[in-house]
Amino acid sequence: MPIYDTVAIIGLGLIGSSVVRATELNGLAAHINTYDADANVREVAAKIGLGNVKATLHETVCDADLLMLCVPVGAMASVAEAIQPHLKAGAVITDTGSTKASVVKDVSPFIPENCYFLPSHPIAGTEYSGPEAGFATLFKGRYWIIIPNDEIPIELTKTFTIYLQGLGAVVETMSIDYHDRILAITSHLPHLIAYTIVGTAFDLEQQLHNDVIRLAASGFRDFTRIAASDPVMWRDVFINNGDAVLEMLGRFSEDLAYLQRAIRWKEADKLEELFTRTRDIRKKIKDIGQLD
Amino acid sequence: MPIYDTVAIIGLGLIGSSVVRATELNGLAAHINTYDADANVREVAAKIGLGNVKATLHETVCDADLLMLCVPVGAMASVAEAIQPHLKAGAVITDTGSTKASVVKDVSPFIPENCYFLPSHPIAGTEYSGPEAGFATLFKGRYWIIIPNDEIPIELTKTFTIYLQGLGAVVETMSIDYHDRILAITSHLPHLIAYTIVGTAFDLEQQLHNDVIRLAASGFRDFTRIAASDPVMWRDVFINNGDAVLEMLGRFSEDLAYLQRAIRWKEADKLEELFTRTRDIRKKIKDIGQLD
Repeated sequence: MPIYDTVAIIGLGLIGSSVVRATELNGLAAHINTYDADANVREVAAKIGLGNVKATLHETVCDADLLMLCVPVGAMASVAEAIQPHLKAGAVITDTGSTKASVVKDVSPFIPENCYFLPSHPIAGTEYSGPEAGFATLFKGRYWIIIPNDEIPIELTKTFTIYLQGLGAVVETMSIDYHDRILAITSHLPHLIAYTIVGTAFDLEQQLHNDVIRLAASGFRDFTRIAASDPVMWRDVFINNGDAVLEMLGRFSEDLAYLQRAIRWKEADKLEELFTRTRDIRKKIKDIGQLD
Repeated sequence: MPIYDTVAIIGLGLIGSSVVRATELNGLAAHINTYDADANVREVAAKIGLGNVKATLHETVCDADLLMLCVPVGAMASVAEAIQPHLKAGAVITDTGSTKASVVKDVSPFIPENCYFLPSHPIAGTEYSGPEAGFATLFKGRYWIIIPNDEIPIELTKTFTIYLQGLGAVVETMSIDYHDRILAITSHLPHLIAYTIVGTAFDLEQQLHNDVIRLAASGFRDFTRIAASDPVMWRDVFINNGDAVLEMLGRFSEDLAYLQRAIRWKEADKLEELFTRTRDIRKKIKDIGQLD
């Protein structure tokens, strides 16, 4: 039995297209309206059968009981403004942005009094992007964070939770600030660092640059995968979660300076102590079943 | 037909045990003598059938035509000193260390005039270690660097190359300094950074620490895998390739400071420009078939 009559997915990148696939596969909605601002993306989406692809935001939105904004966080304000006049009374609006303080600030002013905003964030992804990158099992066993909102009827949050569980996700709630700090250290900073080191290698003199690509050892190969993620999405993340990222970056830089000094002064014990400690963390993540 | 009559593998970690497996599987030696300084490792090795496990270095070495030192680079000097008295005339000695300047400096003084030292390095590995971590296909399609030595007969280098190709490797030659710089940027620095960021996360206040482990997003999960590598091996790498690592770390820190400033001042174009450039590098590595 469908959870919602009509779901509208706006933005058909990796996340949006995966939500469409998972909603369809699990029969969670009677109708799935889809839309992307890019006409080429809409064309591809229609060709590969990503829900009922609509030509306008009005058609996408006007019947929707649940709307999910799956666009880069820098585009949330303008999309929220554009859908506002077309929203059905009682509609629930959510988003999948990786930063929550900025999205709440950007989207909330455009939510009519008879509609409900429930910000959320699926902790899932790959380095691929676009409408063809999505797949129905992307959220299986992955966390999906909801930012709770005391001002909306509890049934709406319950229904939304059941829908997300239907997509395969494990639902958690969390405050905005806590979410943004957790993501800064577990996702945003690792991406920033991966982008940086791949760029550093890219800028080496030509011969070395070529051989770095040719001989790319396993450490570097992992970084290139992360640094192949969607540039616009990630640009927006850093601009919109700057405070938390800069805080974690400050801690990281201090820790790196400590190791740099240990290398320069050949303080082997300091290095070994850290390298032994970090090994245990991997084991803990494995123990709770969150390794691929 | 075996390439060598007797091969001696000293050090039965991931690399050593994989060399034993691959040598055996491909019939590259009539006899494979194996040894590890740790009696517990020798016991495990004997139980799982890792070549002819010997109780002493003398027995391991005295008949060997090819000796491979698969120990942490910090242990190379003492192992070279210990095997020196037992070496057979005409024996070829190689090593699998990730740093080449330090190994050449540490091992060369102990090579007798009637023996030959051919330093080498397989660009292969996993985050697992120990005698049970090895497998016969670890080197398949992976580069194995030889540091050429003009002072030894060319036939010996040729035979060694054929042996490495028999293990499945793609053999390349390279100067010591060039090797150490390439590895600093593609392997050593990525490991240092992964160790650092996992340590930074570990040191966060308790609640955040627990949730970082629980919610570990994909970027961070990749880092924890790298940061689960053998602590002693990596401690030795940083101590023994300090100059090249510090050079690359200097470049990386400059680039990171540039991005940090771009985040603070919300210079979105600078971020997007880099993130677009780094995406192409992944594609290039994929195009040459060096992705797993």
